[in-house]
Amino acid sequence: MNEKIYLDNAATTYVSGEVLNEMLPCFSTIYGNASSLHNFGREAMGIVDRARDRIAKAINAKMSNEIYFTSGGTEANNWAIMGLALANRNKGNHIITTAIEHESVLASCKSLEQMGFEITYLPVDQYGLASLADLMHNIKTETILISMMSVNNEIGTIQNIKAIGKTAHEHGIIFHTDAVQAVGALKLDVQDMEIDAMTMSGHKIYGPKGIGALYIKNGIKINNLIYGGSQERNKRGGTINVPSIAGFGKAVEIATRDLAVNQQKIKTIRTYFLEQVNEKIPYVKLNGHPLQKVQGIVNLSFEMIDGESLLMLLDLDGIAVSTGSACTAGLAETSHVLQALGLGEELARGAIRFSFGKMISKEKVDFVIDKLVKSVAKLRKISPVTKTGGNKK
Amino acid sequence: MNEKIYLDNAATTYVSGEVLNEMLPCFSTIYGNASSLHNFGREAMGIVDRARDRIAKAINAKMSNEIYFTSGGTEANNWAIMGLALANRNKGNHIITTAIEHESVLASCKSLEQMGFEITYLPVDQYGLASLADLMHNIKTETILISMMSVNNEIGTIQNIKAIGKTAHEHGIIFHTDAVQAVGALKLDVQDMEIDAMTMSGHKIYGPKGIGALYIKNGIKINNLIYGGSQERNKRGGTINVPSIAGFGKAVEIATRDLAVNQQKIKTIRTYFLEQVNEKIPYVKLNGHPLQKVQGIVNLSFEMIDGESLLMLLDLDGIAVSTGSACTAGLAETSHVLQALGLGEELARGAIRFSFGKMISKEKVDFVIDKLVKSVAKLRKISPVTKTGGNKK
Repeated sequence: MNEKIYLDNAATTYVSGEVLNEMLPCFSTIYGNASSLHNFGREAMGIVDRARDRIAKAINAKMSNEIYFTSGGTEANNWAIMGLALANRNKGNHIITTAIEHESVLASCKSLEQMGFEITYLPVDQYGLASLADLMHNIKTETILISMMSVNNEIGTIQNIKAIGKTAHEHGIIFHTDAVQAVGALKLDVQDMEIDAMTMSGHKIYGPKGIGALYIKNGIKINNLIYGGSQERNKRGGTINVPSIAGFGKAVEIATRDLAVNQQKIKTIRTYFLEQVNEKIPYVKLNGHPLQKVQGIVNLSFEMIDGESLLMLLDLDGIAVSTGSACTAGLAETSHVLQALGLGEELARGAIRFSFGKMISKEKVDFVIDKLVKSVAKLRKISPVTKTGGNKK
Repeated sequence: MNEKIYLDNAATTYVSGEVLNEMLPCFSTIYGNASSLHNFGREAMGIVDRARDRIAKAINAKMSNEIYFTSGGTEANNWAIMGLALANRNKGNHIITTAIEHESVLASCKSLEQMGFEITYLPVDQYGLASLADLMHNIKTETILISMMSVNNEIGTIQNIKAIGKTAHEHGIIFHTDAVQAVGALKLDVQDMEIDAMTMSGHKIYGPKGIGALYIKNGIKINNLIYGGSQERNKRGGTINVPSIAGFGKAVEIATRDLAVNQQKIKTIRTYFLEQVNEKIPYVKLNGHPLQKVQGIVNLSFEMIDGESLLMLLDLDGIAVSTGSACTAGLAETSHVLQALGLGEELARGAIRFSFGKMISKEKVDFVIDKLVKSVAKLRKISPVTKTGGNKK
């Protein structure tokens, strides 16, 4: 097999043909500024409106105008955390989040701490789940915002979003969720799940990079992050990115339409992959929740191995995997998510994330397993750590 | 002539074929996350590096790593104004800008005022030029930042950037310029012009929407606007937008390479257009500087006419123009730029911006003039204002 195998779909995906076809006319034909009053502008705005409708429908928003386009998930998370906190400061200065949020949420929280906000970072259990009792225990009269991700990007664990939303609202607290990894992987219904603000991104679901959205329920107060013209109902300045929005809208529509089929297919592959790993490679630990998880993300700790070395060996075989989030790839620190699960230094350093996309096949998995077995054996041979015990899985 | 004529290139341009060709492989072939360690990621980063080099070279930055990619000009302006102000607050809280800056600069300044900063909005003369004497007069020991646009987006007036940069540095003040309308229209040299931070955008120069950059001279302190992973040397979180960056880099390269040819061509067209207007339409005033201006932007006030009505009539003839900035199109207020020039309400309301692109031709101008003459006559016939005097131009 000479083809390269891409198992890093949680980092980013290719843009699908259907999505690209939606984008292409917007580069050179329907290229107007969507804010312009003339025909070129109105045509462009028509495309933006359609994309907004598609996304609103996919997440069961009440109104299309509750969808605000951003330059991606990171901007949407920054905007949600900082914009909601600052707009509601008169009600209190306490925010609850978890220890395993995406860097963009955690860094925004750190920035708020410097402005005098108090942040509670809830711990998670060994599977990556935050406890509802813990959440309730930490709610104070000053709590104005709860931000908890729907699906963790490194281990795939799904939080109890609906219960968290309900709890937040029983206490009059705004609930934001980073759903970047959830779109296309689980059914999202902002009304049923009692979500006030939700972050989405294009490039994890075969849409373009550089585009995302923040769902903001009508009536929720939020400050701007990016000021400018009157775009996005005065809430986000900047010329509207028509081609990317067109592609993003299509990508969300497709991901939602094909959710069940894709998840079933990936589940079969995942199961087969894990069976093969268990059968052929000793001393491997599966990180994340055994049941409450998305199918596409498989995070494994290979004992007595440095994950980055394994990544490099697999890369030589044309197989792309990651050691965790791409956003922090190459940094010396071990993953804050794996640390929060209570993994020791060795298991955290030996972690590899395999994230399957909808084009995965059993044939490709067989190739990966073959190379994985060889690379793991090779690295363990030269490993300074020798096994004297441990959990063989 | 059935073809539509687009004279709103200052609002946005189409993406040129050369640029699109640079982008296309990044959607479905070189689609990796540029932060990933594997081959897909390294290939993507190679493309980003090349774009960064191209832009650095075009503006004569000392180092490529002084170019930071953003989601566009608006984000770059927000980042520059707020990031520079907040990072240098220990030195003072006074900022100098002008009354005719882009909305993204003005709104960022307003936001800083709420945080306790003092902003001086320098007036401009009837041609849109800020005075250097005025600037010097307003510098205080607390002044930490001067932000003045290189080229105004509504009237095309070019500020004395080099002299402003020199003045700023003589007083130890950081100098930022919004050069969104300057790229491709005038030679930019950040070292020679003593620029510390400079905003650029893709979609005004036949590049994609949703991408821009902030040049930040090495050594200049700036806070983040968008927090997240370690992208852009920890200064701007978010998955790197590889296709748009590839296109942006190419667009800047082409715009810089073809600058002289394009400007000469547009100058000839502009001259012809203005001659025809002067010959065939009475009571028209040219807004902006007669000499110190970019060739592509022609802002005319048609007396006894509502600009928006003229825009609509021209639109019916397939001609796209604007009444000012697209960012505020449709708003009831008259342009803050035209107000700053001292134009009365009637002249401000009667203003139309014609912005020529590199594909303009004499034939198209003839068609536009013909329609313009008819539409102006038609509107003046039904106008409630009748002319009793005024400057016939």
